[in-house]
Amino acid sequence: MTHTVRDKQRLLARVRRIRGQVEAIERALESEASCEKVMHLLAGMRGATAGLMAQIVEDHVLTHLVDAEKHPGALNEDAAEQLLEVVRTYLK
Amino acid sequence: MTHTVRDKQRLLARVRRIRGQVEAIERALESEASCEKVMHLLAGMRGATAGLMAQIVEDHVLTHLVDAEKHPGALNEDAAEQLLEVVRTYLK
Amino acid sequence: MTHTVRDKQRLLARVRRIRGQVEAIERALESEASCEKVMHLLAGMRGATAGLMAQIVEDHVLTHLVDAEKHPGALNEDAAEQLLEVVRTYLK
Amino acid sequence: MTHTVRDKQRLLARVRRIRGQVEAIERALESEASCEKVMHLLAGMRGATAGLMAQIVEDHVLTHLVDAEKHPGALNEDAAEQLLEVVRTYLK
Repeated sequence: MTHTVRDKQRLLARVRRIRGQVEAIERALESEASCEKVMHLLAGMRGATAGLMAQIVEDHVLTHLVDAEKHPGALNEDAAEQLLEVVRTYLK
Repeated sequence: MTHTVRDKQRLLARVRRIRGQVEAIERALESEASCEKVMHLLAGMRGATAGLMAQIVEDHVLTHLVDAEKHPGALNEDAAEQLLEVVRTYLK
Repeated sequence: MTHTVRDKQRLLARVRRIRGQVEAIERALESEASCEKVMHLLAGMRGATAGLMAQIVEDHVLTHLVDAEKHPGALNEDAAEQLLEVVRTYLK
Repeated sequence: MTHTVRDKQRLLARVRRIRGQVEAIERALESEASCEKVMHLLAGMRGATAGLMAQIVEDHVLTHLVDAEKHPGALNEDAAEQLLEVVRTYLK
């Protein structure tokens, strides 16, 4: 995932937190925790997953849509930021 | 909305269909239609709204992220298509 | 929509606001407003649509799932509230 | 999670599949797989998470909203099914 080498540690930290949340849901189900608790854990994990996807999409847009070495300055940064605002809104 | 001049009629057709769906919801509420009917109408209108947003995002990505006159060929089309697949999945 | 007679005016006010938002999007497209503006208007309208659906689902849960005249007190209000919290989270 | 004792194994199977999907994403990030691959894995995991939430909400509605021992027959099954259709649509 070349566009995230730079951000690899940050993405890995996010995905490991999500793994911890999934494990907490598994434990809650095994121990027959209340339905309310399971739904809360699941909603939290879904939010974290959306955040990870938003991060990956952001890296993708900023790094992959234009090869900055071949075409320096070609990416319209304002237009990219507008796109990412929409993505973040929809991934919440 | 310069990036959609080409697609302006198509976008207007979509938004007018959505307006018709909103008006149908208004009439359903006024005539005290069943809750089930109102929820179905609303789900349909939400789908159409997501489709409009996906279309606008697609036009934005393909037209605005790179000024094709100044930087011909700078937009990586495969990367753009991968992005749009994600957007479509999340906007369903 | 018997379960919303009581709330009919409130729901109609919501749907009329959405209609106004759709009309603003139509005008923005017709006048070739910036893509950014159209995306913002559309995101606002989507939020209002989600709010309307959340309201209708809430009315449905509180009024239709149990016939309160035949089965007074049968609806578990805590469980209903937990359900509605999840619905609101997902409809944001 | 008393309302899912019956379905406990089914829910655990779902959550374990999600854990496997998260682990696959972690491995993909560690091995610097393509961005496209990571986005596909993440979209699949998001779909599975939505399916788990829909299942839990369904169990919650059918088991917790009405205490069937104290109030047999009080839950309006048609109204519950209409609600669950909406939930499934929005959780896709």
